[in-house]
Amino acid sequence: MITLTSDFGSPYPAAMKGAIRRQTDAEMIDVAHDLPRGDPRAAAFWLRFVLPEFPPAVHCAVVDPGVGTDRDALVVRAGAHVLVAPDNGLAMPPARALAEGEGETEESIEAFAVDVDEPASRTFHGRDVFAPVAARIRAALDDGPAAAGPEGVAAALAAMDDLSPATDPVDIAFPEPTVERDADGDPVAVDGEVLVIDRFGNVVTNVPGELVRGSDWIRVNEELTPVAETFGAVDAGDRLVTVGSHGYVECDVNDGRGDGAFDLRPGDEVRLVGDNVSM
Amino acid sequence: MITLTSDFGSPYPAAMKGAIRRQTDAEMIDVAHDLPRGDPRAAAFWLRFVLPEFPPAVHCAVVDPGVGTDRDALVVRAGAHVLVAPDNGLAMPPARALAEGEGETEESIEAFAVDVDEPASRTFHGRDVFAPVAARIRAALDDGPAAAGPEGVAAALAAMDDLSPATDPVDIAFPEPTVERDADGDPVAVDGEVLVIDRFGNVVTNVPGELVRGSDWIRVNEELTPVAETFGAVDAGDRLVTVGSHGYVECDVNDGRGDGAFDLRPGDEVRLVGDNVSM
Amino acid sequence: MITLTSDFGSPYPAAMKGAIRRQTDAEMIDVAHDLPRGDPRAAAFWLRFVLPEFPPAVHCAVVDPGVGTDRDALVVRAGAHVLVAPDNGLAMPPARALAEGEGETEESIEAFAVDVDEPASRTFHGRDVFAPVAARIRAALDDGPAAAGPEGVAAALAAMDDLSPATDPVDIAFPEPTVERDADGDPVAVDGEVLVIDRFGNVVTNVPGELVRGSDWIRVNEELTPVAETFGAVDAGDRLVTVGSHGYVECDVNDGRGDGAFDLRPGDEVRLVGDNVSM
Repeated sequence: MITLTSDFGSPYPAAMKGAIRRQTDAEMIDVAHDLPRGDPRAAAFWLRFVLPEFPPAVHCAVVDPGVGTDRDALVVRAGAHVLVAPDNGLAMPPARALAEGEGETEESIEAFAVDVDEPASRTFHGRDVFAPVAARIRAALDDGPAAAGPEGVAAALAAMDDLSPATDPVDIAFPEPTVERDADGDPVAVDGEVLVIDRFGNVVTNVPGELVRGSDWIRVNEELTPVAETFGAVDAGDRLVTVGSHGYVECDVNDGRGDGAFDLRPGDEVRLVGDNVSM
Repeated sequence: MITLTSDFGSPYPAAMKGAIRRQTDAEMIDVAHDLPRGDPRAAAFWLRFVLPEFPPAVHCAVVDPGVGTDRDALVVRAGAHVLVAPDNGLAMPPARALAEGEGETEESIEAFAVDVDEPASRTFHGRDVFAPVAARIRAALDDGPAAAGPEGVAAALAAMDDLSPATDPVDIAFPEPTVERDADGDPVAVDGEVLVIDRFGNVVTNVPGELVRGSDWIRVNEELTPVAETFGAVDAGDRLVTVGSHGYVECDVNDGRGDGAFDLRPGDEVRLVGDNVSM
Repeated sequence: MITLTSDFGSPYPAAMKGAIRRQTDAEMIDVAHDLPRGDPRAAAFWLRFVLPEFPPAVHCAVVDPGVGTDRDALVVRAGAHVLVAPDNGLAMPPARALAEGEGETEESIEAFAVDVDEPASRTFHGRDVFAPVAARIRAALDDGPAAAGPEGVAAALAAMDDLSPATDPVDIAFPEPTVERDADGDPVAVDGEVLVIDRFGNVVTNVPGELVRGSDWIRVNEELTPVAETFGAVDAGDRLVTVGSHGYVECDVNDGRGDGAFDLRPGDEVRLVGDNVSM
């Protein structure tokens, strides 16, 4: 199995699929091709959320604002999973989640740089570099021992002569929020950060959802906002704080865009304060 | 084969696919993941239109405004097809269409409630409940007799010990329009209802298309509107009445939104009157 | 393998997949279903770009503003590839690219008209005509010699009694730009044409990208515009000229629509003049 993720929209991913199909009959499953454009951090966030649901697979993920520069093409092994991606950090957060999901340590993760021939285009390395590499790895794994565990995958990658250990792959670290607690240890305020804006304009923060569950109202950067489990709990056009299925606090607008209403962008600070002292 | 339908957008359905792939290698085919949010009636409409095209399959359909409440997870057998969906009615109209398509009676449809363990999330039962149930049923069918007809599917479901007969599953009934006819029996007016708004803003009614075919003009709630086979027959921004490929009358705007122009919402009444007495 | 391309949006392509699955288990791969509505020329452009990436396959492509009229359903063989499409020209440019990609001449391309029974609908021939024809051809090829090359595919098509040679299939020719050169043979101006607008509003011209590479500024219909490799090189809302991964010059706006800013539509003339004489 090869999963495919990009910010390419349509119909470019089909060109990647054609290139893969020239090398292997392996199943291809789309994760998303409408990720925020040129935003490796958003890609890392979503892949960290989605990829651990899959059994071991080759994951080809291309959100690549540096296409055409000399950034490396990266292959990352996490347990029996393999990620193929540009070396801009997007692969590392999902690699850690995949290793954890397989009971492996973060230290077991291996990264390789791909020795890339001059690609056919300067702008479509998804088709010309990453898809072919993913297909070649998939084919090597499928031609190897039937039920390759992490050791089998590691051996197969070690045997590919266009891969060399990556000494210092770019990484993306998601910041941890700072929680203020009262004398009883209950949270009263959180200083968090906006991780990503999804394509509906929902503002996804790094604040764990359990910190706001049970609250009816919360101050978001001083603005009093209802906390609700569903968008429909507030009128169309009204703001709300909710918890997305990724488990983090979101600042949203029912039938509107939270990024505009809250004036928040990725990387912005967001302070959440419980309205009645305790959140 | 498992078909997948939701209002989840992207990349959430990929998490469902990963969860399914952990249990079965069965083919997965997307029906749609951009259905109107939280609208089981719209989902029922579209599934009734699309699913009967498929050979017998397991259909996992999740449009679930009640996620996190105590609504049941439902399994419905219609002929050799199986639907897995929340118990909010969306499964029943397509189940009737599937039964009819296989020459079965509506009475032959069986519904089961799923005995669900505490799911991993409160908000993503697509991944945590419905996809795993669909995968488990698919695997049970694929491990059973090769060419399972309706009886084979019924037997396989009866053998699953976490399914119990659903006594009174929620249903959605699409209303029938009222047709006024002249002395010759020709239609002169129809009182219908808006069934769904599609994502282009097209207003889909419950009025069968044959009632307007052959007309050049028609009054929609008193507003004189051209009847056309294609959007391009009117200027950009202009209204038209047309017949969608689902066979129903639509109130549309070329390169615009019909719901706004006609001020119509799902459930609204719509009266069509032929301009020259006969429609 | 069957690839699927349309302007149907969602969920209509799923109905085509169901219809195909009733006839064959062949893999189905989506190319795109969000192509510009009713624009065979745009479809031809994108298919010419994407399909040559695939190994030999049956390609079902339906952008069909003439649905319901008496236009033919067409089957086109290009090497070992087969296209199934309405006879409106969209199939011919990709057919030429597919033939070229397989080292075949344009003259080797064969076109057939399909003898179509009365379809079930007047508006959804994707489901009722093209998908079933594609499935039947796929099944015929898969039941024939294992590794069918062009001759095998030609023989299989010749044996289908509902196909007859198409004497004069509609074609779409993409215009060639006119290049003015100085005494040294270097380009100083190009008169081109807008081929397609993509769904982001990017204006794709017929001017080959190498003509602008190396320039910093260029006049687009007299308007001085920066030439950049990435959208991010200009501020949000600003215009730029760039080269798309299809290899052609685009007139775009970062985080906006180029078609509006440059006032350009498909078929419009576009004159590019180097700011410093040499481009």
